Amino acid sequence: MTSSDSLPLDPSAGAVALTRQLCDIPSVSGDERAVADAVEAVLRNQAPHLRIVRDGDTIIARTELGRARRVAIAGHLDTVPVNENLPVQDRPDPETGAETIWGRGTVDMKAGVAAQLLLAVELDDPAVDVTWVWYDHEEVASHLSGLGRAMRNHPALFAADFAILGEPSNGTIEGGCNGTLRAHVTMHGKRAHSARGWMGVNAIHRAAPLLQRLAAYEAERIVVDGLEYREGINAVRIDGGVAGNVIPDRCTIEVNYRFAPSRSGEEAADFVREFFADADEVEIVDLALGARPGLDDPFARGFVEAVGVQPKAKFGWTDVSRFSALGIPAVNFGPGDPLLAHADEERVPVEQIEFTVSALRSWLTGGRAAGSS
Amino acid sequence: MTSSDSLPLDPSAGAVALTRQLCDIPSVSGDERAVADAVEAVLRNQAPHLRIVRDGDTIIARTELGRARRVAIAGHLDTVPVNENLPVQDRPDPETGAETIWGRGTVDMKAGVAAQLLLAVELDDPAVDVTWVWYDHEEVASHLSGLGRAMRNHPALFAADFAILGEPSNGTIEGGCNGTLRAHVTMHGKRAHSARGWMGVNAIHRAAPLLQRLAAYEAERIVVDGLEYREGINAVRIDGGVAGNVIPDRCTIEVNYRFAPSRSGEEAADFVREFFADADEVEIVDLALGARPGLDDPFARGFVEAVGVQPKAKFGWTDVSRFSALGIPAVNFGPGDPLLAHADEERVPVEQIEFTVSALRSWLTGGRAAGSS
Repeated sequence: MTSSDSLPLDPSAGAVALTRQLCDIPSVSGDERAVADAVEAVLRNQAPHLRIVRDGDTIIARTELGRARRVAIAGHLDTVPVNENLPVQDRPDPETGAETIWGRGTVDMKAGVAAQLLLAVELDDPAVDVTWVWYDHEEVASHLSGLGRAMRNHPALFAADFAILGEPSNGTIEGGCNGTLRAHVTMHGKRAHSARGWMGVNAIHRAAPLLQRLAAYEAERIVVDGLEYREGINAVRIDGGVAGNVIPDRCTIEVNYRFAPSRSGEEAADFVREFFADADEVEIVDLALGARPGLDDPFARGFVEAVGVQPKAKFGWTDVSRFSALGIPAVNFGPGDPLLAHADEERVPVEQIEFTVSALRSWLTGGRAAGSS
Repeated sequence: MTSSDSLPLDPSAGAVALTRQLCDIPSVSGDERAVADAVEAVLRNQAPHLRIVRDGDTIIARTELGRARRVAIAGHLDTVPVNENLPVQDRPDPETGAETIWGRGTVDMKAGVAAQLLLAVELDDPAVDVTWVWYDHEEVASHLSGLGRAMRNHPALFAADFAILGEPSNGTIEGGCNGTLRAHVTMHGKRAHSARGWMGVNAIHRAAPLLQRLAAYEAERIVVDGLEYREGINAVRIDGGVAGNVIPDRCTIEVNYRFAPSRSGEEAADFVREFFADADEVEIVDLALGARPGLDDPFARGFVEAVGVQPKAKFGWTDVSRFSALGIPAVNFGPGDPLLAHADEERVPVEQIEFTVSALRSWLTGGRAAGSS
């Protein structure tokens, strides 16, 4: 290894310091070059055991030790826009008093990247082969995703038996994710002057039973690979009307359906069409499949046991789905409370960063992980 | 009277020809000067028996014969925008085969103005005093109304016992008008990520019972001064939602309540607040009172008997309310089907123009009208 004196990132200072260093390189989506350059420089200087491939601002760094099993460990480098919350600050958490780093990117997800990067440099002889991936454009439209692009450009580099995404999971493992579907559900009517409303048909009034049904619906809870996924179906937008004196001839409800990863896209679409069978139009406008947690696989099970926590289902959609689409079971495991992602008060407890490092290190260097390899 | 050879309007050609002449002077709201100038020129040249006052593009022309009773007869000079439907054309009505004039302004309301202008010039010795009014800016925001402005600037000129507005009434008399109220009715909620919808409160779902109530409501029919007014309450617009993945914290329904002229503004507002008593906010954003038809007054009754039709209630709001607000009972009486107003296929049957002239002439020159004066 060469000296790190001239590099902006210094893993030898520990994952907590590295979190601060990563956060303080602004990297809002579309502007990830500086942080990607810094990550690549550290790897090229300090991790000669890794084969490094760069694709745009995505970096893939692999051990190629011929181990029986391979894990992909990934995190995104970009953040949502800064809102006067950089550089990071060290302040205790107001509720718990715990030592905490505050600022944009701390939770989502520079602390996870720091834990990963530290181990990528440190572990030159892991018990399983590792494909480290840090990527651009996660916080924006799906088609811009650096992870998706790198998977298309370099499919062979992504072969793996299991994947760990460093999205914040608040000290536990969140397995898989729900799928998400959006639909535009429309009722028609007939325009008329509102002074003679009885000559028209009010499309907004006709939407009432659909909203009543949504309000009354008890969403299902579905167990997949041992984890319980809670579904939900909600009106997220509604729009209708022509003018203040016209009976409206159209009312559209935008519906978001979050569905368990055991359902196919076709099943999810059928459910929504059936739910709104009496609507005049149901148009599916967006559909992203969920991801099974895959925790019935012994290799994944070994990771869970090494971390020593009870895994939970992940409700929000994350990039674990991209691994799932390649047939690779995937979980979320990273420091911080996902509910604080994107918040102005975004912050991560120092203890969770250190826990993430020690849990990953323990699994990657032996114990049950070595036994399963 | 002087020669009319050099004037654009020629009442001696009859009300039907005069309708064509009036329509062919484009006079979209805000651009009424040419038509107002033409009307004023005819009056000054051919109606020395009238006292003429001009206020902007509004013309007030009065007989001052000292009669016991006075009627105001009014019509607006402006039209909604032309849509390739000028100059006017003579074509039979496709449904009835009747002789018909087609084009912008024919119904709303140059045919009515033509009937009035012809009689204003012709009747130099009517049985009742007449205040003729032709005014600007009816088809736009209420505060721009030329009639409202002239009433404020010259209140004494508007004293009258009864008013006839030449709005199209399809061969009958439409008495008074309903009032109209608009309110913004809002439900609140609590935002949450739609992946964990149960952590929020969906404001759009909470609006469902309000829409159900609107859909189920049977509006009242209320008899006022012998005419039945049909009320109505409708959602005319709805808006809610933040983003495709957020539980909405706000949903606003714009409601339009059309109420019988027997209700005060306060009663109408109370009705709407009571109707939505369970809403989080009810804001009255617009309120215009109705107008009683006043057909229990013997003078008005005499007009109805002279015309020889069974009067009906007017549902839409018209400028009769401005007379009503001055304590003057008012009716709508003019040629053409009000449902064709503003339509591209706007048209007026020639027979209705001639009927309007003969009915008004009969009443103004004697018979029952004279008897009641």
